[in-house]
Parts: sequence; structure tokens; C-alpha cells
Amino acid sequence: MKIGILGGGQLGRMLIQEALKYDDEFYTLDPASDAPCHNISYFTQGSFNDYETVLNFGKDKDVVTIEIEHVNADALAELESQGVKVVPNSNIIKTIQQKILQKQFYKAHDIPSPEFEIMDGSSDEIKMPLPFVQKMNTGGYDGKGVQVIRTAEDMKNLWIADSVIEKLVDIDKELSVIVARNENGETKTFPVTEMVADPKLNLLDFNICPVALSEDIEEQIDSITEKFLNAINSPGLFAIELFLDKEGKVWVNETAPRLHNSGHQSQEGNANSQFEQMYRVVKNLPLADTDAIIYSGMLNLVGAEGYSGKVVYEGMEDVLRLPETYIHLYGKTETKPGRKMGHINVLAESREELMEKLVMVKGMVRVIAE
Amino acid sequence: MKIGILGGGQLGRMLIQEALKYDDEFYTLDPASDAPCHNISYFTQGSFNDYETVLNFGKDKDVVTIEIEHVNADALAELESQGVKVVPNSNIIKTIQQKILQKQFYKAHDIPSPEFEIMDGSSDEIKMPLPFVQKMNTGGYDGKGVQVIRTAEDMKNLWIADSVIEKLVDIDKELSVIVARNENGETKTFPVTEMVADPKLNLLDFNICPVALSEDIEEQIDSITEKFLNAINSPGLFAIELFLDKEGKVWVNETAPRLHNSGHQSQEGNANSQFEQMYRVVKNLPLADTDAIIYSGMLNLVGAEGYSGKVVYEGMEDVLRLPETYIHLYGKTETKPGRKMGHINVLAESREELMEKLVMVKGMVRVIAE
Repeated sequence: MKIGILGGGQLGRMLIQEALKYDDEFYTLDPASDAPCHNISYFTQGSFNDYETVLNFGKDKDVVTIEIEHVNADALAELESQGVKVVPNSNIIKTIQQKILQKQFYKAHDIPSPEFEIMDGSSDEIKMPLPFVQKMNTGGYDGKGVQVIRTAEDMKNLWIADSVIEKLVDIDKELSVIVARNENGETKTFPVTEMVADPKLNLLDFNICPVALSEDIEEQIDSITEKFLNAINSPGLFAIELFLDKEGKVWVNETAPRLHNSGHQSQEGNANSQFEQMYRVVKNLPLADTDAIIYSGMLNLVGAEGYSGKVVYEGMEDVLRLPETYIHLYGKTETKPGRKMGHINVLAESREELMEKLVMVKGMVRVIAE
Repeated sequence: MKIGILGGGQLGRMLIQEALKYDDEFYTLDPASDAPCHNISYFTQGSFNDYETVLNFGKDKDVVTIEIEHVNADALAELESQGVKVVPNSNIIKTIQQKILQKQFYKAHDIPSPEFEIMDGSSDEIKMPLPFVQKMNTGGYDGKGVQVIRTAEDMKNLWIADSVIEKLVDIDKELSVIVARNENGETKTFPVTEMVADPKLNLLDFNICPVALSEDIEEQIDSITEKFLNAINSPGLFAIELFLDKEGKVWVNETAPRLHNSGHQSQEGNANSQFEQMYRVVKNLPLADTDAIIYSGMLNLVGAEGYSGKVVYEGMEDVLRLPETYIHLYGKTETKPGRKMGHINVLAESREELMEKLVMVKGMVRVIAE
């Protein structure tokens, strides 16, 4: 089958890597000539934001999917009308691309998400009391396009642009759950992972899976995933990012309509990985078993501050000596501060052992330049 | 690093698949334009048996390795003299390519291997009593080039060619052990696997790992792997195929200087796979942990008798529904009777459960043509 992917980054690369177990032809579209997928797929250099480029790329494929949500969804809608299968459907991509539509989608489907107002270019009408979160309607990614406005002083930083003004949640834990639905309507949910964020880079730092949660919290999450999977009316794999607040209530922060950083530890920690599941979704195959077989955790390898240029992974040989430790690099030759260059998955018998190992491994490696 | 592989078949494909976790450039050489590696590596169509072709292919690589042993070893020796690293060294490849040299190597290093004579083109001098095994000196592969001569009548089938005449072992079990050695001299051994052969196709049918063996047998195998790893004086990953005879004595049948069908279940059954280990050997990195984490088994997907043409995997969707079951196809579009098209790995809590699952899965799938 000819499978086209909009985006040629690490998520696409790991999807193709997993899917090499099967016999498909992968095509990728990315503006960067050295994108991580360029040498393991039939590669087209071009913009996944451009209507004509996406249309041309997609028209001779059996199915088109995405590994980034900032794509031209109108072109995907046109491909659908021409009979090309698009996973997930252009409608749900459009909804998720725009934070305002995304919030309205949660509200319409009774999915708990923090209280919000819409700001359409003017700050005059904001009724939300401080502190609050401002999320740009479009273009946010990896924590960009999101800011916390805490004080009257902060108000001068407010972006004067279409955005969501959202009540600030008093966060106890950040959680994520990856869900999948195929065209036949079959659904599967991965065990919940906990994300420990690095406040400086606002990229994930550690993922931990599974997480011990009370029955009540599990039920809230089950209710959210069930409502979400019923509401989307589309095949797809989605990462639902959750806040657990200090009163034990679960809120949806946002959803990614694609493979997600918070699912990377599934590569060695679960019976099947998110990449295997995504492949099955794309091909409408029976969905894979998602059981956690052990405690697993992930740490991102991001470019260190102060280093740009040809990447060097300092300390990597020492990491290779550790059992139950798996390095995944993304085939990027150039590092810069904060760039996601790879990740390391770690397995352990308990959460305590896992945290110890993750902290140790994090201390052993540094992503620098030649 | 620029890594060149002679051969572009499934072993190379699975090596590259695993190594996509790291940042290297893979180059493959294969006569078939649609070889399994052709679209996931920088591919050169050409003969790995041709001196000039191999020399040209290898001269600008940092390291050259093999995924098939029938390559031009003289060209590899020349590459070594030009400073290109070759893994494993051309010397050990030459030794293994020729069954006569291979047998003499075992003898010289006190590695138990069935008693033998050399036949150099004439049958007159054979002293070995019937029944015996004849192994062609060169060109054997997947059971080809090997025959059992049981009776005086069979003698008329004797190949009149340089060959090894070997005492027939009264086999209780066929075992295999995959060993690795890096340039630094570090060595690691995978747990022993048992191979259950299909007498008709002479391709492996099931692999089972680990195998419960008596302390005495374990010691014999440890002694063999230790002697072998000391004798080779080369980095490499090797599959040592063993016979356990009915008196409890272990004999080396033959050795493959490369990744091997008998190690495929390590993809999900072991802490790291043979492909990960091979990558580390090629790059002289610390060797990976080889522990079996569960019972694992493998069955080959070979083209069914009577079907040639565009491949169809009958029953595959049903297999995808099974937990702890992993399909690996090789990206070959055309099937023919007996062709290795893929394999399926199965995990289980016990040997009994594993055998039941393998037999069930084998009954569910058939490799046919459109």
C-alpha cells in the first residue's frame, strides 16, 4: 500500500521504522531536505502547509496521514472528496489545529476541559480573573504559543491575536493517554503516562508509565477517552494531554491528532508501541495490545544551551553499557539549543527504580556540537 | 558513519531497521534491484561476488560488513589492506565459506565437530563407513549443498566435487547459539535456541528460546563458544549451529559469520536483538545485554508450494488479533515455493504454551500468490 505522511520528522521516522515489519511503501513530504525520513522513504521536499503541494503529494496515495498537525487541512479535505483516505480525517485535524474550535469541541461533547473565553483580537472584554492561561488560536507547538498571565503587570505581554483565555489549573500531575480508533470503529487505549516537564524548555523531560491512580481518577480518564473516541467520528491515533488538579479532578489540556512524545516509552515498555498502533490505524487493521509489560520511562535528548552545529552525543557509550536502556536518535545532523534530537527509554521493576535510573541517565549524557 | 553491507536481503533490512535508532548511513550492494534493502538504504545494484564491484562499493565506507557469506572475500582482504574496516575480517569469512577450511579450523582449535574426511573430486578414497553426510566445499546455503548418503545405492548420487565427508550424527536436538565479539575483545553470547527443522524444505521451521539443558550440556556449549570466540581473532556476530546427539554430546555442525534465522525471535524475546548486537559489533560499541525476558519462538513464513507471483499473506489479519505475536515481513513482492518471505515471533510464559501458540499460528497463515 502507498502510504503518504505529511511531515518527515522523527515521528514519521519511528513510524516507518516500526512498519518496516510489513510490506508498504512510505512517502513523506517535508520542507527540510535532510528531514529524518528523507533517506528511508520516497521523499518529496516541499511545504505541508501549501494547498497545491499537499494535493499533488496525496493524490496518488492509498492513504495520507500526518506526523505534525500544522498541515493544510483544506487540501486534505479535497483529497478526501477525491476518494483518498485521510487518517485522521481533515475535519478533526481542523478542529484540533484551532484552539478555539478544539475548546468548543470539548464543550459540545461534555469533555471536561478548563473554563475558557475566546479573545478575538482585543483584550478589552476579558472577564477571566487573573491568573489565566493564554493559548494562541493557531500555530502553537511544543509549548510555544502558550503563556501564563499571572499579574496585572503580565497583561502587557498579552498577545493581541485570536486566542483562548483559559482558567489556570492548579496542577498536581500532568498525564497523557494515547488512544486509537480504526475505521472499523475498534478502539484501544494505552496505559496512562505521567509527564514531568522541564520548566525552562517546556519540552517534556521524563515520561513515566504506568501511573498508580485512584479508582476515581481512572474512572474520570476512562470517561474522557470514551467520550473523545465517540465524538471524533474518524480513525486516528490521538494523545490526550490531561491535568490532574490538586482536588483530584481531571481536565483535558489539549489533544494532538498524531503520534506523541508522551508515548515514546511504549517502544520497549508496552506489548506494542504507539508506532505499531498508528500503522494499524492507518491500514484499518485489528488494533494492537497496549499492555504495559514493565515500568518504563523516557527522557528527551535535547540540544544543550550554547551549542549549535554538527551534533555530538556526549556520554552515549556509557549509556550503551546500561541494561534495560534504549537509545533512540532521530537522524538529525545539526543540533541547536532545545532541539529534540532523540530520546532514551528505560525499563525498571518499580517506579522508584525507574526514577533513579532516569535521573542517573540524564546526568550521563549531553547533546553538544563538534 | 558510512556502513556498507554486502547483500541487501532481509537480514540487512532488519539490521538497518534496528539501527534507525542511531545516526548512521547505510549502503547496500545486491544484484536484485528490488532487494529488501533497496528503498531504506543507499542502494547499489551489483554482484557481491565480483572483485571490482565489491572493491568499488567498499572503498569509501568507514566499515564494510556482510549479511550473506557468499561474497568476494579477496576484495574484502584488499579493502582491509587499504584501511577499510571489514567486520567480520576477510580471513574468517574465507574460512567459513569453504567447508573444508571450516572443518580444519574446528580441528585446529579443538572445537568438537563430527569426524570428517576431505574428498577432492574423486570418491575412490572415501574411508568413512555409511551412512555419512556430504557437504559441498563451497556454495552451500539454506540446506543446499548438503546430502546424506545412507546406502550403497545412494553412492550414485554422490557429488563429484570438492567436499567434506562427515560422520552422520544421531541427532537428538538441533541447537544454535549466537555469539558476538567486538574489536575491543568484549564478547556476549545469546541464550541457546532450539531449531525444529521441516524435513521437506530444510528451512528452519520453529525456533524456541530459551532451552532447558543439563548442566553438562551447558558446559559443553560454553566451552565451544569460548574456544570459538578466542580462535576467530576478528570482530563479528556468528551463529554456531550445534547438534546434540543422543548420548548427550554437543557437536558443531557449522557456523554462519553473520546474522541468522535462528536468532530472529530475539527481536521481541530478548533484552536486545541479534540486530542490535550486530550494529554494536560493526561500530565497536559496548555489547548489548542478551537476556531472554520470556519464552520466545519463531516460525518462518515461506512461499507455499504451487504459488508463484505477487505475494498474498492469507490469514494475516487473524494473526494481528493475537496478543504476544509479532509479524515480520521482508518487503519481497514476489513469492515462490520455499522462498523466505517473513517470520512470526511469538512470546509465552512456558515452553508448552509457546509450542501450542506456534502450531496454532502456523495453521492460520499461508503465503500464496494473487
